[in-house]
Order: sequence, then structure tokens, then C-alpha cells
Amino acid sequence: MSSHFGRVTVPTDVDMIEETKEIVKRWGADALRDCDGTDMPEELKSLPAKIYSTYYTTRKDNEWAKANPGEIQQMYLMTEFYTAMEREELRIPVMKHLYKEQLKPNTIDDIKRWWEVIDRTTGEALSTDCWSYEEETMEAVIHKPLRYHDYTVSFLAFIMWDPVHMYNFLTNSWENVEHQITYDVRQPKTKEYVAEKLRRYLKNNPSTDVVRFTTFFHQFTLVFDEHAREKFVDWFGYSASVSPYILEQFEKEVGYPFRPEYIIDQGYHNNTFRVPSKEFRDFQAFQQREVAKLMKVLIDICHEDEKEAMMFLGDHWIGTEPFGEYFKNTGLDAVVGSVGNGTTLRLISDIPGVKYTEGRFLPYFFPDVFYEGGNPIKEAKENWVTARRAILRKPVDRIGYGGYLKLALQFPDFVQYIEDVCNEFRMLYDNMGGQVPYSHFKVGILNAWGKVRSWGTHMVAHAKDYKQTYSYAGILEGLSGMPFEVEFLSFEDVIADPSVLKKCSVIINVGDAYTAPSGGAYWENEKLVCALKEYVAEGGGFIGVGEPSAFQREGRYFTLANVLGVDKEIGFGLSTDKYNWEEHEHFITEECKGDIYFGEGMKNIYALEEAEILCCREENVQMAVHAFGKGRSVYISGLPYSFENSRLLYRAIFWAAGREKEIHRWYSSNYNLEINYYPATGKYCLVNNTFTEQSAIIYDGNGNDREVTLKENEIIWYDFL
Amino acid sequence: MSSHFGRVTVPTDVDMIEETKEIVKRWGADALRDCDGTDMPEELKSLPAKIYSTYYTTRKDNEWAKANPGEIQQMYLMTEFYTAMEREELRIPVMKHLYKEQLKPNTIDDIKRWWEVIDRTTGEALSTDCWSYEEETMEAVIHKPLRYHDYTVSFLAFIMWDPVHMYNFLTNSWENVEHQITYDVRQPKTKEYVAEKLRRYLKNNPSTDVVRFTTFFHQFTLVFDEHAREKFVDWFGYSASVSPYILEQFEKEVGYPFRPEYIIDQGYHNNTFRVPSKEFRDFQAFQQREVAKLMKVLIDICHEDEKEAMMFLGDHWIGTEPFGEYFKNTGLDAVVGSVGNGTTLRLISDIPGVKYTEGRFLPYFFPDVFYEGGNPIKEAKENWVTARRAILRKPVDRIGYGGYLKLALQFPDFVQYIEDVCNEFRMLYDNMGGQVPYSHFKVGILNAWGKVRSWGTHMVAHAKDYKQTYSYAGILEGLSGMPFEVEFLSFEDVIADPSVLKKCSVIINVGDAYTAPSGGAYWENEKLVCALKEYVAEGGGFIGVGEPSAFQREGRYFTLANVLGVDKEIGFGLSTDKYNWEEHEHFITEECKGDIYFGEGMKNIYALEEAEILCCREENVQMAVHAFGKGRSVYISGLPYSFENSRLLYRAIFWAAGREKEIHRWYSSNYNLEINYYPATGKYCLVNNTFTEQSAIIYDGNGNDREVTLKENEIIWYDFL
Ligand SMILES: [Mg+2]
Ligand SMILES: [Mg+2]
Ligand SMILES: [Mg+2]
Repeated sequence: MSSHFGRVTVPTDVDMIEETKEIVKRWGADALRDCDGTDMPEELKSLPAKIYSTYYTTRKDNEWAKANPGEIQQMYLMTEFYTAMEREELRIPVMKHLYKEQLKPNTIDDIKRWWEVIDRTTGEALSTDCWSYEEETMEAVIHKPLRYHDYTVSFLAFIMWDPVHMYNFLTNSWENVEHQITYDVRQPKTKEYVAEKLRRYLKNNPSTDVVRFTTFFHQFTLVFDEHAREKFVDWFGYSASVSPYILEQFEKEVGYPFRPEYIIDQGYHNNTFRVPSKEFRDFQAFQQREVAKLMKVLIDICHEDEKEAMMFLGDHWIGTEPFGEYFKNTGLDAVVGSVGNGTTLRLISDIPGVKYTEGRFLPYFFPDVFYEGGNPIKEAKENWVTARRAILRKPVDRIGYGGYLKLALQFPDFVQYIEDVCNEFRMLYDNMGGQVPYSHFKVGILNAWGKVRSWGTHMVAHAKDYKQTYSYAGILEGLSGMPFEVEFLSFEDVIADPSVLKKCSVIINVGDAYTAPSGGAYWENEKLVCALKEYVAEGGGFIGVGEPSAFQREGRYFTLANVLGVDKEIGFGLSTDKYNWEEHEHFITEECKGDIYFGEGMKNIYALEEAEILCCREENVQMAVHAFGKGRSVYISGLPYSFENSRLLYRAIFWAAGREKEIHRWYSSNYNLEINYYPATGKYCLVNNTFTEQSAIIYDGNGNDREVTLKENEIIWYDFL
Repeated sequence: MSSHFGRVTVPTDVDMIEETKEIVKRWGADALRDCDGTDMPEELKSLPAKIYSTYYTTRKDNEWAKANPGEIQQMYLMTEFYTAMEREELRIPVMKHLYKEQLKPNTIDDIKRWWEVIDRTTGEALSTDCWSYEEETMEAVIHKPLRYHDYTVSFLAFIMWDPVHMYNFLTNSWENVEHQITYDVRQPKTKEYVAEKLRRYLKNNPSTDVVRFTTFFHQFTLVFDEHAREKFVDWFGYSASVSPYILEQFEKEVGYPFRPEYIIDQGYHNNTFRVPSKEFRDFQAFQQREVAKLMKVLIDICHEDEKEAMMFLGDHWIGTEPFGEYFKNTGLDAVVGSVGNGTTLRLISDIPGVKYTEGRFLPYFFPDVFYEGGNPIKEAKENWVTARRAILRKPVDRIGYGGYLKLALQFPDFVQYIEDVCNEFRMLYDNMGGQVPYSHFKVGILNAWGKVRSWGTHMVAHAKDYKQTYSYAGILEGLSGMPFEVEFLSFEDVIADPSVLKKCSVIINVGDAYTAPSGGAYWENEKLVCALKEYVAEGGGFIGVGEPSAFQREGRYFTLANVLGVDKEIGFGLSTDKYNWEEHEHFITEECKGDIYFGEGMKNIYALEEAEILCCREENVQMAVHAFGKGRSVYISGLPYSFENSRLLYRAIFWAAGREKEIHRWYSSNYNLEINYYPATGKYCLVNNTFTEQSAIIYDGNGNDREVTLKENEIIWYDFL
């Protein structure tokens, strides 16, 4: 594969035949794909390029769906909180604020078994004879509510319009397109039907090389409100992966009765920020096993027909859990996913057990970006440069684009830029030599999810920033392009075997109090707490960001206060005078220019006696360091991603690891430039992450320095002699 | 009593005889007092003024203290948190960071009974055979600690230097003054001795008219560190009111065994911000009864000798609890206290069951203010104008000053200003006519302490602002001068009888999550929650400030979210889209000029669907209103005291009460001016709270308006015809 050909996938459409051929040549594409709303032209199937066929297991067959209404996909929903203002009858309109074309309450299955009305004032589920449901008004009726108690209804609804189809429909202002209903491949009739249909499809599409499953069975949680606005989105959400059929199997497997509340979770739907309950972890494990089993059925069918099976990491990806236990047993050949930044790149490229991964880069060729006067090249550049850092650590094996090729061709500069990107990608892929790049040491991210949510911590919707997440997501984004091995550890991992910590030179705990990234009630676990302390006392490094180890009890807010050297004043300790407020210069902050940007920052953090404060704003400590036994700890209030902050984190990691004397190996004096070394090829590269020229003194692995200047976004390759 | 004489107390000293006479004349003083460090000259005892004799029941008698070391006062202290780095022996230096001249560990009483070593990692107290204490090194030794567990030692220490004497000693740089030891009047020998000594004292001081107890028995918690800096201060703290003698009585009364942890409270010492435990409430009640009983013994002795008994609200005031059940039975004649602002004025003037109250105004005549180049008049003016608002609602019956008269006389302008203040005070006292002023209606402050902490919510040290309190204390300070009746209600009051809420037109819950002012786990109580909802649903007003009703459970952070119309996003709800961000104009904010000052404000508050946002900053709602049933609710993130904020609160209260149409009664169009009406005399006054001239249109009780202009700080009196 030369640097001018291969590793690139492009979208096409029936009216784009000659244009596709031209693009294939310029971009060196070796694969073609269709998309939602486009088709593969027959004429292109003979090109010397693999043909990806986007395949939907769960939709684009309303006939089947309508004929089997009991096997339409379902999801658990919770109503708003209704206060009983009177003792007589509380009526709860279950579909209030929901999009009626998307969702329909499931009254086919026994609602008394599968729905739940909860008194949220007491936390107790109502006995089923205390409420009923009126089909016409779509109201749950609580017969004798307790006055002034709040009630919610948890109910199952059929998904009458696939949420992604709906999203694409709305984004592209489609007209006269039938709403696609989703059916549930896990159910018996549909399972048979879908397998058979896939066999038929493969027979009828001999030119297909790669079946691009978009995706398998269960959509991440995505709900629209009555105005068709997004109402609830959790890219990791399992709430739409349920049905009585599935839940009965679950009950059998775990041996305890199912409750809707296990999925509803007070309306939080077990999102990434919730410390997962035992029941939800059981459910997630069950789903993973069952989904993997059924994935294998479809993948085997592809293999029987000598096609590759590729999975799109998105849409109906729930239960596949690429970082989970069962994924590698499915026989899947490849994963393709959308790349929003370095973190989402690693979310794809780190997936173990597949032959190759592919990143779909932005922008998607949709009219929201490709309109007259639009600037798609800007988005493309930012996307590429941001993701490139992560590619240099762990590359996807292929890159690709999606959407309407027609739209992209109206922007010739864009076409040229992507040509350059494709060439650059191929060259760096070659230079990396298919082996792992040099890492200084290993860094562990410790949270309630661990491996299964590798790179997915702090993510709500795909790669979208939230006010409450960007200050923490910056840590992950920084790490995605740094020369450290990164491992995601769960509290359960540590409790089961404290020695897992010792693989890491530095452990990071980052997040808001009581959330899954921080840990919440896990910090009551004596074994966990002692494991962490032992790890640091014996020389490990600990970096806490935000409200690390927070759980108010026994006189502390941060359980690891004695390690961190800081705690948070939440009002109980105001009587105790606090004297340590002085800022100190430090190795970690040596390269900071002006005020450090902590994002949301943190209020009311104070330093214990022996901590050294690196930054304090109005008696709110933002950064401090502390020694504990032979180890070291760093506290940071928050750290949104920026080149400067990324360098600060890099230095904090080196310092926490006690390795600060070694920092001038594979190092650039200018934090806008980053270096990676590839032992497999003996090459190293220097990459300019900015849109301006940058100079630096760089240090190789022997500490030898040289002065260099790089053009905007440039990447330069050297041999390490 | 004319406006030129009476209701004023001045300090004197032996070398100030002629000067005192002059001041008595100018200020119209009718009482003289000595202070800590001064003495009453014989020559003045014949003046036509009452003689206050500062009387210390617990100190100034080291001979007694030394002869009875077992009856020296004691306090419970907790060490820092020590991590056991090894399995072998953890040594905890109990006196680390304590001032050795102030405190001495009590090893006279059985330490295995009265001390406690707690494993803070498990929360369990160690069996007493697991640890010992070394007298020479002052170390507690834990024999086989669990590695990496944190340990604390709770221990009793004798108070070898009275904290207030120490404070005065340090503030005045006294030299060659013996440290005064405090002895415990509650103990049998000292009780006898002190009673007898008081009798003797009264015999020997026939010219004393008023015995000014400074104070009774137990010092509020005040601890100094090894550098004699304040280390821990809780003006309400009970930690220094303990001894084995007392605690054995307590055990007998409550019928369950005492544990040091009941007082230590994880090191938080049951401060005002802690939701009080049952055990602490029991202890507080026990102390109140016992202290009241013993107060009565001493007060009776005064009365037998035809002296008045006055109590200084400070120093050793713990257990007296002027707003408690037993205080009124003591026979006490008067309370005097230090006035820092409107809130502390009401803390004195609202005390029920005494014949009169006296406010000691600032500045205290100490060299920290009265030095060459100092500006005592500035402090005096601010103090007077700030407190005057509250005096106009509920006056103290007397005002007074303390310290070294000598120092004050060096500032003639100051002397003149105080003369004016004394005259103004007498005039307003007369015009109020000894009856309650007109109130629009009643406002209730709902928290975990209720009545016993009337006006004391959000106070750490006396009238001192903390970063975590000033945004909430502003509500109390505003109310201290407003034409509303104010009642302090506890959650226990409401749980016992929900109808107590109905006395109030508006209920306010103000504070940080999980603190006593906010309520913490009380919000799990169904009865409380329903009482509040019923109250609002039936037309009551609710104002929540900060994190009102906060307790994370069942899908809500604010338990009363359905009432408030807002909740706080703590990370669990990020998947749910929030649409309501638009600001609205409103009655409440009509008089706000420019940006409203919320102090610390609050992050991540969002509005529910039907709430109306009045102020939102970067998707952090700062103020919102909401209807619930027939009632109304207002959310405010915080509201430090200012004239503008006070008006905002005033309008919020009127709106919440549904009385906004009546606001133009006893109203000034300029929020720098306030009006109060006194039905007893038919007079009303207009007061300018600023240091500049102010004009306004004012409205009397019939809504009749007139235009007025007032000079700086001016007060004008009118007859209401
Ligand atoms: Mg797609
Ligand atoms: Mg999407
Ligand atoms: Mg004092």
C-alpha cells in the first residue's frame, strides 16, 4: 500500500458515478459505501475497491414491523413527577412531552407486570391494584394517591420511528419518506426472519465485500419531545434494549424478579454518570452475552458467504460493548465509528479483537455543513488535527467519510484538503509500522465503569461537550494523544485484586462527587480505600480532578483527603480555621503562561497542612500537590482540553510518577508540538497541532536536542539513530 | 426619661474619674460598668447612675482552680486524621497543633472511659485494649492499627487558660498578667464555693446595682493553635461544656451510655451547620435544664441582696440558650450582648422573658481600633446605622459601650458622634412606645434548629462573615429590619404539628445542601415534605435560597423541586435536555438596577418547565418563580445583604405571599430609605440607611404618598393621622 492508495472509504450514490471514480483516484480510496438515504450504483461495483453495504438489521422493513407489532422495539420511559394535589385520583398523562410519532405505550404486554407506578416521596412502588391505565386518554390513573406525594409512571413504549432515521429525516428535511419502525431482532420470529433476510441479501448482492451493520440490535437511548426536539440522549443508554421477552430471560438468568426501576433508575436511566447498581450491572452483562451470541449468528452468515462483517459504533450499538468480555467472540472483522476528537478516535482504535478499525471523519456530507457559504474545510481541519494526536498513539486502520458526495464536490478546496489528509494518514500509518508506539509508562483511569467504558467517561451524547463535563473530559482528550499507555480500571477491579493498580505509574480519578467517574458510595469500601493508599504510599502517583474520592462521611468529604492533601469545605468545617493558602511555584506549572484555565473549576477546596498549593483563587484551591508515603498526589479542580492544559497534565503525570527528571526525553519545549517515537520503524515524528507556524527545541529519546520550526498543522518524520 | 438622659451604659476605669463624669453628662448615661482589665473607681459609685459590676463566675481565681484541679473546666477535642502507614504501632500526638498553655489532656479521669480512638476508615471506635496513652510524649499509641486506615483520638482536656482572657490578653498585648484558669461551676465543690463567693462579693460591693455575669458557666468553643492563632471557633459550640461529672448525670438522665463521639461529631463538634443528632439534641436539652437551674441559684443570690442580674450574651453563655425552654425560669433581669449588625441586634432584643436588654455597640474601646490614625467613628457609624434598622423593629432597651474609656476620649469627634447616637436612640425608643411596630404579616425561617437558634442561623463566630455564609446571612440581615414578624421554626416543630406553618404567610429555607439551615436528611421525612407542599398548595409562600430542601434521592436533588420549579443538576440528569432558560421581567426584580448581586451564587440550577426565570447566568439559574397550587415559590441562589438586595427580598416576600398589590403601604420608592409605623404612638419614621442624601416618594398605611428628602443617616418622625 503506497502513501497514495488505500485505507480510505468514500460514500457514493446512484447519480455520482463519474464523480466517485474521480474521487476514488484523488483520495486513493479502496472502499465505497452507501449511506442512510443513498444507494450504491451498479456501475461502481466492478471498481477495484471494496464495496461496503450499509445494512440495517432493525429497520427499513415496515412491512415486517407492522405484521409483527409485538416484536417492534421497545423502551422504558418515565413520566415527569406529578404531585397529588387531591386525595381523589391523580391522572398522569404518560405521553406528555413525548413525540407521539416516535413512541407508543405498550399495552399489549401486561402493564401490571411491566409498568410501575412509584411514589417518589416514599420511594415505594404502588401495588398494582392502586392504579389503572386509560387507553384513550393515555393516562395512568392513581386511585387514591397520598396527598402531596410525587408520583411517576415507568412504562414500556414501542419505538414506532427509529430515532436515527428520525434524526436524519429532520436534519435533511426529507419529505415523503415513510417513518422507519424498528423491530427487535432478539425476539424469536424476527430473529429467524432477519437471519434469513441477511442470507437472501448476500445472495442478491454478490458484489458486496463488507456488510456494514448499522448497527446490530439496540439503539442507544434517544427520545424526542412533542416538538421533535431531543429530549433525552445517552449514547451509552440501555433503556431502549428492553422487551418483556428479553426481561423474562433476564429474570431466569439472574434468579431474582425484574423491576422496571432497574432500568428507569429514578429517571436517570443508568447513564454514564450514575454509579451502576448491581442489578444494572447484571442486566448489562446479560445483554452483552445475548447480543454477542446473536451478533455471531449474523456475522457467521456473512462469513459463510465470504463477506466481512463491519459494525458501525453508533446507532443500535447497545449491548455490543466493544471493550467488554464477549465482543471478541463474535468474529466481527471490523469496527467503524465517527471521530469527533482524540477521545472518540481512541474509543474506536483501542477496540481489541477485530481485524481493523475505521474512523469516519467529520464533517458528514450533510447540508447542515455543506451549504452555500458554509466552511466544511474548517471543520475538517479541526477534526483531523484534533484526532491526529490520538491516531499517532493508536491509529485506526482506515479513515472514511459519509453522507452525500454530491454536496462535498461543490467545495473543491475541501476535496483537495481531504486528498492531503488521506496521503498524510497513509504515510503516518506506514511509519508507525503496525506496532505500539513508545510509552513512558502506564496511566490508569479509575472509575465505576472501568474497561467497559474505556474513553467513554464523561460522554453524554457522542463527543458533545456539556458544561458539567468539559472540565473533566479534557483529561481524557489530553491523554488520548500522550505517550502513555492508558488503562481503564473499575473500583470492582481494584476491590477484586488491589495489585491491578501497580501496573500503573499514575492513577487518575476525575469527576464530580457521587458520579460514576468519581465513585460515590464505592468510597465507603475499606478495601478500595486501603488499596489506593497503599498504592500511593509505596510510590504510586495519584491525580484527583474535580471531586476525587468524594463521599461525605467520618469527617471528610474527600475520602482520600490524607493522600490528596486537600478537602472540600461543604459547610460543616467552617469552625475550623484554615491557614494554608499560599501559592508556590512548581515543576508542574513551569510552562503555564498567565492564568491557568480550570474550566468550571471548583469552589471551597482547601489545603491540609502539608499540601503545597500551586493555584488558589479567592480561597478556592484549584491545584495542589502532596506527598503521601513514598508516593505523590496532585489535585486539579478541572482541566478543559487545550494544548497548554494538556502540557500541564503531562507534567503533573510525570511529577506524580516521580519521574520529573526524565521529562526531557521525547519532549518538545513548545507545548503546541508533540513527539511520538515508533520503535518498530525507528522513526519519530513531530506534529504541530496549531494553525500557525511553531518553533521548539525538541529532545529525542537520548535527550539530544535540536531546534525545529513547523508550518501550520505540519507533521515531520525523523529517523531515530 | 428625656431624650437627653438614660438607657446608656458607659465603661470607666480607676484613672478616669473626672472624664467619666463628663461623659455621663454628655451621653446621658445612667449606668457605669467595669470591663475585663479595668476597675470601677470608688469615687464614681455615688453618682446617680447604676453600677454594673462585671462578674466572672468561672475565672479570676486561680488559687481556687489550682486547689481543685479536678474541677477545672474541660473540653472535648479531636486530633487530626492520622493514617497508619505500618501495621506496627501508630502514634498520635494528641496536642499537635494545640496551644499547650491553653489546654492539658485530662488523664485524671479514666481515659478508657472518656477518650475514644476511632478508625475513621470504618467509622468504628476501637476497643480500649487496642490503644494506650503515654503521658510524657503526649501520644496515643494504637498497638496494631489496620494499615492505611485513618485514626483520630477524641480526648478530654482541661482549659488551663480561659479563651476569652487569652484573646483579650493577646489583643491588648498584656504583660505580666497571670493566665486565668477556668473552673467548672457545675461541679459540686466549685458550685458551693462560687455561690458563697458571690454572696461575699455582694456584701463587699454594696454600691453594685447590677451584677453583669460574664457569663455563667460554659465557654463557647474557642481553641487556639500552637502559634496562639484561633484554630476552632463556634460561638454556639457545646464542646467546652463537658466533664465526666456532667456526662455521668447526662447518662443517667437519658438512659443510654454516653460516647465522646456525640460531642466530637467527626470533628465538626455539632456546629450550627450540622443537622443535630438525636444524642446532641438530648445533650443540649439536658445542659439547658441544668444550666438554667444553676443560673437561678446565682440569680436568686443577687435578688436576695436586691441586685439585678444581667447576663452577657457571649463568652461562657453556652447552655443558657435565651430562646430555649428554660431560660425564662431563671429569673434573670437583663441580657447584654455585642451588636455587630441587625441580626445580632435581634439576637439580643428578641430574647423573651427578661425585663430589659442592652446592646453593646461597636467599636469596643480597644487599641485595635483606637490607635493614632485610626477611624473609630467610621466603625461606630456603620455599626449604628446597620443596627438601627433592627432596633426600629424590636429595640434593645439600652445601649452601651465597653473597653477603655481613656482610648475613646482621644477622639473628640467620636465622643460627639456617640452623644448624637445616644440622643437618637432615646428618641426612637420613646416614639416606639414600648409596643410592637406594625408588621405586614409573619415570615417563618425553617431549619433544623428553629427557635433555639433564632437569628443565629449561618453564624460561625459572632457576626463574622464567611465565604460560605454571607450569601445566606444576607436574608437574615435583611429581615432583621423589615416590617414582618419573624419566627424561627424547626423541622421537628413542623413534623410534630404541620399547622405551625400556617401562622406564616411565607416560609424561607436558606442554606447549603445537607447543612442544618437547609435540612439534609430531614427532607426524607414524608410528613415534613407533605406539610410544606400542603402549606404552599393552600396559598402559602415559599422562598428557597441556595440549596433549599436539598437531599439527593428518588430522581430529585431538591426534594421540593415540584414546588420550587427548579432543581440542581449534579451530573445524573445530563442526558435530559433542558429547554427553559429564558429570563423574564417580574414584579420582584422591578427595582433592581444593573446586575443583581447573588454573592457566591449557585451553579447548575435549572428551571423545570413551568417555572419563570428571573435571572440566569450561563445556564445557571439564579432566581426563578413558580406557582404550586394556590401558593407561590421563589428560588434565589444567594443574597448577600445590601439595600438593593434587601428590597429584592422584600418584594419576593410580598410576591410569595400573594400580596404584591398591597406593597404600596408603608413603602418608600427608594430602597435606601425604610419606613416603620408604631400603632402605640401613632408615629411612623423614615430612616436613611446611607451616608448620602436620599429622596423618595413614600407611602403611608393608607397608600397616601409624599415626596421627601433625607440627609445622610437621617431619621425623620411623622404622625400618622
Ligand atoms: Mg451512518
Ligand atoms: Mg446522533
Ligand atoms: Mg468578648
